[in-house]
Amino acid sequence: MTFREIVGVHPLPGSLIRQLLLRCAEECLDCAASCIACADVSLSENDLELIRVIRVALDCADACEPTGRIAIRQSAPDIRLIRGVVEGCAAACLACAEECERHAVDHEQCRLCAEVCRRCKAACDEFLAH
Amino acid sequence: MTFREIVGVHPLPGSLIRQLLLRCAEECLDCAASCIACADVSLSENDLELIRVIRVALDCADACEPTGRIAIRQSAPDIRLIRGVVEGCAAACLACAEECERHAVDHEQCRLCAEVCRRCKAACDEFLAH
Amino acid sequence: MTFREIVGVHPLPGSLIRQLLLRCAEECLDCAASCIACADVSLSENDLELIRVIRVALDCADACEPTGRIAIRQSAPDIRLIRGVVEGCAAACLACAEECERHAVDHEQCRLCAEVCRRCKAACDEFLAH
Amino acid sequence: MTFREIVGVHPLPGSLIRQLLLRCAEECLDCAASCIACADVSLSENDLELIRVIRVALDCADACEPTGRIAIRQSAPDIRLIRGVVEGCAAACLACAEECERHAVDHEQCRLCAEVCRRCKAACDEFLAH
Repeated sequence: MTFREIVGVHPLPGSLIRQLLLRCAEECLDCAASCIACADVSLSENDLELIRVIRVALDCADACEPTGRIAIRQSAPDIRLIRGVVEGCAAACLACAEECERHAVDHEQCRLCAEVCRRCKAACDEFLAH
Repeated sequence: MTFREIVGVHPLPGSLIRQLLLRCAEECLDCAASCIACADVSLSENDLELIRVIRVALDCADACEPTGRIAIRQSAPDIRLIRGVVEGCAAACLACAEECERHAVDHEQCRLCAEVCRRCKAACDEFLAH
Repeated sequence: MTFREIVGVHPLPGSLIRQLLLRCAEECLDCAASCIACADVSLSENDLELIRVIRVALDCADACEPTGRIAIRQSAPDIRLIRGVVEGCAAACLACAEECERHAVDHEQCRLCAEVCRRCKAACDEFLAH
Repeated sequence: MTFREIVGVHPLPGSLIRQLLLRCAEECLDCAASCIACADVSLSENDLELIRVIRVALDCADACEPTGRIAIRQSAPDIRLIRGVVEGCAAACLACAEECERHAVDHEQCRLCAEVCRRCKAACDEFLAH
């Protein structure tokens, strides 16, 4: 995605933290879009079993999208704020991955969505470890 | 706001948790809109001192708005997800309140915004205490 | 909501356009939250008839929320951008109102949501008329 | 991005409209992230000339992101709603492209952002032409 090139122009020098944040942002935006798609496919199946998937996927999209926005910004960061939001995002990705994995055998959208959520959680965790 | 009436129709019975979540949602939506307004007024002042306010207020709006969405939903909740996101929101509100308070004497938008952030943090904390 | 007080501090002088935009913002934020609640209550009813309501209410929330953000900002506005987004929002509110009205007799969440969508559309139209 | 694979699982058959919407969604998500990055880099430069860029880029991100969400969904679409929102998004991309182009020579973030906005507007227009 193009935002990496634009962030590369930022007057503040690059750093490992920035690289981890941009990786996190990329996964968050991929995950948010995947969760919206998963909730939509699941809605169209009108299966009582999938209500929890839909709810959690909508929440996970709502958690990931702003985390991506926040991780893109480099000016005057507040590190506690960023850590708090990324922790919340990791919790959302874990919950969505676990719920989707319960339906992964029968619902391909859930299998794909769980994979993206696991990747996004890993990127959040890697940032939080530093 | 009208969403309370609509949530009142939800087939799941009401509870203390729901009341705390709806209070949280209301404060989150008020806080998100206030942070957008604070960032915008601060931007128009073109004051180097306010760059950090603008950054943190944009982040806080981005954290509060989806927390409001998630707190409104009552179907099939995942409590770890909700707690994680509300904790992230509380961290964002605290950071924004502290930054805005530094400028509250000279910038009325910061004084007002800090108050809303403190209220929103309190509503998040009250939910998290249960 | 508190954002009105904060916008009142903006260095640019107030105007009729600003009053119309702030009214629009208020209705957009109320409508977005109401659509999220309506989609959630409808999801919990697991009724095939309500799939279209859920889809359109999710879309309407997604259209209204950023329109509210844009209408709150007063610095350096681009009037074509604002008009374009408000027109899109009005189209979303109309579609959601009409879909919800089809289910208003049997589903109280739809009756309430349709009312808010009509109000939001009216606020958008009033801005667009100036 | 992964959402294309997930949408490929949707029970409704694919179509030209779907391909155009998914292209539009991809550009919208790229554009939203680019506008956030452009506003952030511009903010850090603290240049009075860039206030309009920041305002319009924030608005454009807010217009593109939900348009991406709406374009991803395939269940029970309301075509007037989708067209209205995509038209608003195209207006936002045009405004942001034009404003960024004014600063493209001196500000690399604006040059890059304008390119993405033009691409996103083209994808919106291509959908609207069908």
